[in-house]
Amino acid sequence: MSLLVVGTVAFDSIETPHGSVERILGGSAMFSSMAASFFTKPRLVGVVGEDFPDFHREAMQERGIDLAGLQTEKGGKTFYWKGRYHENMNSRETMEVHLNVLATFDPVLPASFRDSTHIFLANSSPAVQLKVLDQVHKPQLVLADTMDFWITSTHDDLMKLLPRVDGLLLNDSEASLLTGETHMMKAGRKIQDMGPKFVIVKRGEHGAMLISGDGVFVIPAWPTEPVVDPTGAGDSFAGGVLGHLIAHPEGPKHGRLRRAMVYGTVIASMCVEDFGPNRLRKTDRKEIDERVQKYRAMLDF
Amino acid sequence: MSLLVVGTVAFDSIETPHGSVERILGGSAMFSSMAASFFTKPRLVGVVGEDFPDFHREAMQERGIDLAGLQTEKGGKTFYWKGRYHENMNSRETMEVHLNVLATFDPVLPASFRDSTHIFLANSSPAVQLKVLDQVHKPQLVLADTMDFWITSTHDDLMKLLPRVDGLLLNDSEASLLTGETHMMKAGRKIQDMGPKFVIVKRGEHGAMLISGDGVFVIPAWPTEPVVDPTGAGDSFAGGVLGHLIAHPEGPKHGRLRRAMVYGTVIASMCVEDFGPNRLRKTDRKEIDERVQKYRAMLDF
Repeated sequence: MSLLVVGTVAFDSIETPHGSVERILGGSAMFSSMAASFFTKPRLVGVVGEDFPDFHREAMQERGIDLAGLQTEKGGKTFYWKGRYHENMNSRETMEVHLNVLATFDPVLPASFRDSTHIFLANSSPAVQLKVLDQVHKPQLVLADTMDFWITSTHDDLMKLLPRVDGLLLNDSEASLLTGETHMMKAGRKIQDMGPKFVIVKRGEHGAMLISGDGVFVIPAWPTEPVVDPTGAGDSFAGGVLGHLIAHPEGPKHGRLRRAMVYGTVIASMCVEDFGPNRLRKTDRKEIDERVQKYRAMLDF
Repeated sequence: MSLLVVGTVAFDSIETPHGSVERILGGSAMFSSMAASFFTKPRLVGVVGEDFPDFHREAMQERGIDLAGLQTEKGGKTFYWKGRYHENMNSRETMEVHLNVLATFDPVLPASFRDSTHIFLANSSPAVQLKVLDQVHKPQLVLADTMDFWITSTHDDLMKLLPRVDGLLLNDSEASLLTGETHMMKAGRKIQDMGPKFVIVKRGEHGAMLISGDGVFVIPAWPTEPVVDPTGAGDSFAGGVLGHLIAHPEGPKHGRLRRAMVYGTVIASMCVEDFGPNRLRKTDRKEIDERVQKYRAMLDF
């Protein structure tokens, strides 16, 4: 069993009420791989420019991430995002985006990655996500993330992607945009009609909801305090879910996915406690397990 | 053990995307008493006008509510509220309010009510809430609801009330307004410093959070579908909590309050499935217990 993660690797500059950082390691593939690395050795597919420093590569390799699929574009510059979070951390403002090497990213999987069993298609165009799927031999479980921009601008491509994924990950407002339904149970079922067997609705500080053939599962967020930097929360959630699924193949699928979502939630709660991947670089499986125990106690009645 | 509920009894006219109703039975004391009536015989204190019909009285008496404290003001008109809910049911617009007899409401407890052990002070001015407390001999547990208007307009009175209540019930934005904190854990602890031993933060479709000496308890909402009319959700939650606490005095207080909040959540989820108290009038303890079982399964991992 092996996890393939496709997405961005980036430089992030971030301002929050807790401070600011310049050009730190970011990106959806980075966050989800970091999160998954507590359970498995994720295979990362992405692109960076020649300006991408070795110490960022090493930070990922230290966590066991396989970078054989991280292309370096000669003369290119790494994807750069600059954003600011406001007081309540629920809204963010993009101040600068330079796609750079991402603008022409054509994901090519190394031969050694094509037998991956679990695939996380982090947020990118459905066309790119489809191109990745075409290169995988026989995936057992494909989870895709998407966002409002792809739903409106590349709707046809998205409709081609959805029958090929097992699970779709998106937030409340995106689920409403995709289905025209404001009620998440209804929206979830409409998305299931488009192909995915399950839908995970991300609700930020309110946790997440799983809609599947087994009904609905609702999972609140850990009340992290303070939230220093929300960047990467959704991706580290997804990476934690898939990593845990790979590491714990026993038991009914139903129960496994729920349990995996608890781990994803806990890892995401750690991610937001410091800027970028700083907190995830400092934790370990033991601390994660301990927070899962506390989380369980918090929900017990 | 006996529950005293003080609040409004009203005529509500309500428009939602699911339809509209004119002058149906409403009010915070009515909803919370209805919800508590599955566990105990609540004592209601409130005021109506001479226009208040017998069949509304009977609807409450049918559920075992003691109306000895429901004053009828001669020549007066019952409090009237007209409101409209928008598509997502999270925002509502007040179209008309006629305080009528509520404007001069001076709560006087019947002698038979003064030995009540559990008190729910539904949303009203802290001065009125204090006046009620002064008339109760020796309450064991006092839960008060409040709102933004009292927090800003009658802050001093509220500060006098808070040391006299065990629990405060309010929503996210009201907790932030009262404390200047956007993070609910911090806000909760600041409110505890003002007097209450526990704080319940209502989060609408996202459930509720209990902050107490025992730490934090997070409880998601039941994903009711469709939500026909959200009116009374918070009050039926509170009534369910207090009713269940009275009926189940066994076990540690910590666990009892959590369990009671589950019942409050489930009863509130039923309340919103029809206009006004219509759904609560049709259910029974058996159906409530069944939904609690389903709720437990929904959260299991």
